[in-house]
Amino acid sequence: MKIKDLSGQIFKKQSYLCVGLDTDIKKIPTHLLKDEDPIFSFNKSIIDSTNSLCIAYKLNTAFYESNGTKGWHSMEKTINYINQNFPEIFTIADAKRGDIGNTSRMYATTFLENLNFDSITVNPYMGSDSVKPFLQTKNKYCILLGLTSNEGAEDIQLKNTMSNSVYIEMIKSSLNWGDKTNMMYVVGATKANHIEKIRSLIPNHFILVPGVGAQGGDLDLISKLAMNKNVGIIVNSSRSIIYASNDKDFAQSAFNEAQKLQNQMSKILDSKF
Amino acid sequence: MKIKDLSGQIFKKQSYLCVGLDTDIKKIPTHLLKDEDPIFSFNKSIIDSTNSLCIAYKLNTAFYESNGTKGWHSMEKTINYINQNFPEIFTIADAKRGDIGNTSRMYATTFLENLNFDSITVNPYMGSDSVKPFLQTKNKYCILLGLTSNEGAEDIQLKNTMSNSVYIEMIKSSLNWGDKTNMMYVVGATKANHIEKIRSLIPNHFILVPGVGAQGGDLDLISKLAMNKNVGIIVNSSRSIIYASNDKDFAQSAFNEAQKLQNQMSKILDSKF
Repeated sequence: MKIKDLSGQIFKKQSYLCVGLDTDIKKIPTHLLKDEDPIFSFNKSIIDSTNSLCIAYKLNTAFYESNGTKGWHSMEKTINYINQNFPEIFTIADAKRGDIGNTSRMYATTFLENLNFDSITVNPYMGSDSVKPFLQTKNKYCILLGLTSNEGAEDIQLKNTMSNSVYIEMIKSSLNWGDKTNMMYVVGATKANHIEKIRSLIPNHFILVPGVGAQGGDLDLISKLAMNKNVGIIVNSSRSIIYASNDKDFAQSAFNEAQKLQNQMSKILDSKF
Repeated sequence: MKIKDLSGQIFKKQSYLCVGLDTDIKKIPTHLLKDEDPIFSFNKSIIDSTNSLCIAYKLNTAFYESNGTKGWHSMEKTINYINQNFPEIFTIADAKRGDIGNTSRMYATTFLENLNFDSITVNPYMGSDSVKPFLQTKNKYCILLGLTSNEGAEDIQLKNTMSNSVYIEMIKSSLNWGDKTNMMYVVGATKANHIEKIRSLIPNHFILVPGVGAQGGDLDLISKLAMNKNVGIIVNSSRSIIYASNDKDFAQSAFNEAQKLQNQMSKILDSKF
């Protein structure tokens, strides 16, 4: 997907919401467990109910791998279902991969080519040659961990180097690895006090913002600080949408929660554009 | 596996060799492609031929994921085959995972419990709460990226903070997360000039050393610098062993290459212990 098509979707749907499909077999409604593939049944219902309200779906690979071969198959079916039925929706493999060059090349092939996700989250700790294989497929995106939402971000990312925090050094280095046509960045909503500095370094890149909802980030605040002239942010919410209800009405409840966020986003977009 | 059992195996087999099963469907002998599961056929033959010479097998998850559901199944069959037939051999999921707490918990369950690997490599960039879920299973190991073998290690790990390199800060922090009974570290053989400093910080932990062979690390040098009083190192070689031949004699050729390394290791052990 081209970056301008993503911006177009945002204005058309009045939404920059990403729904995180962190689908846990232990948390889905029990009536689905009799289905052949309960994880896919759940995802299909969530996608069918929320696709008009969001511009992206993010699949957290950990949740699928935890079900082994069957889980991997559920992931394949889910991404195929989105690509076939909602090709305008941006898809993210939240995989946080990264390894030496030949291994990163394998991961890039798996997620961006074989599974045909539009993007993959990548851990930049191993540096340039671990990231570059993810930048080689046209109209696909490597979403680098810019500054993560969790407390542990203090341990390495927020350590000070001689001139800057480690994460700032990483972002600066990464400007030599790719550009806004093949890179985005994860910046946690809980790290709002860093966002202006980050935006000054990457004024034109898209930022994927997790941490709104269960993790406590503030949508209004992060939107105000992180938006650029093309919106330039995708805000993810997972648990608060997909587990809004644990009953037969789960898909409707997910729609309702997604709609609350989309309404809030629509107002923010109206006030800014 | 307990750490003393691992040391026991090393002295018994006169080897600290780990064979890396980076099995690529495009590189295995073509006569295997007619088998139902060529990747597993290849791995089984390599394991059958090399198990007397090595004390560990490392499965690089990227290579299995690149074959989708089928590849994940090959990985399951391979780890089960090792655990059932060679339970004394230490197993490593070279997965380089790491995410926010609830997600790392999922990865830990997948690899250390469901698949029953003895250990998993973990990327520490997201800090303590991303690592701790990997430390909670008894007699299992979280192998943190200490200092990786690739050039890109310069970009973040070798950046200087106010007091130390980033990777040194990480190792120091990690001493509060776990201990030698649940943590090990990856240190690339190509980074021999850093090993004495690393050993002074973690004198009793095991170190997993990749980068000997195709990546150019020197076995004698790294052994001399990195060994502790219990040996304390596992040296991995992947491509130079498993792809020693591309013909019907591939398993015998892998044995021969592994034996060369084991002979060299035996001499080193004789000279040190």
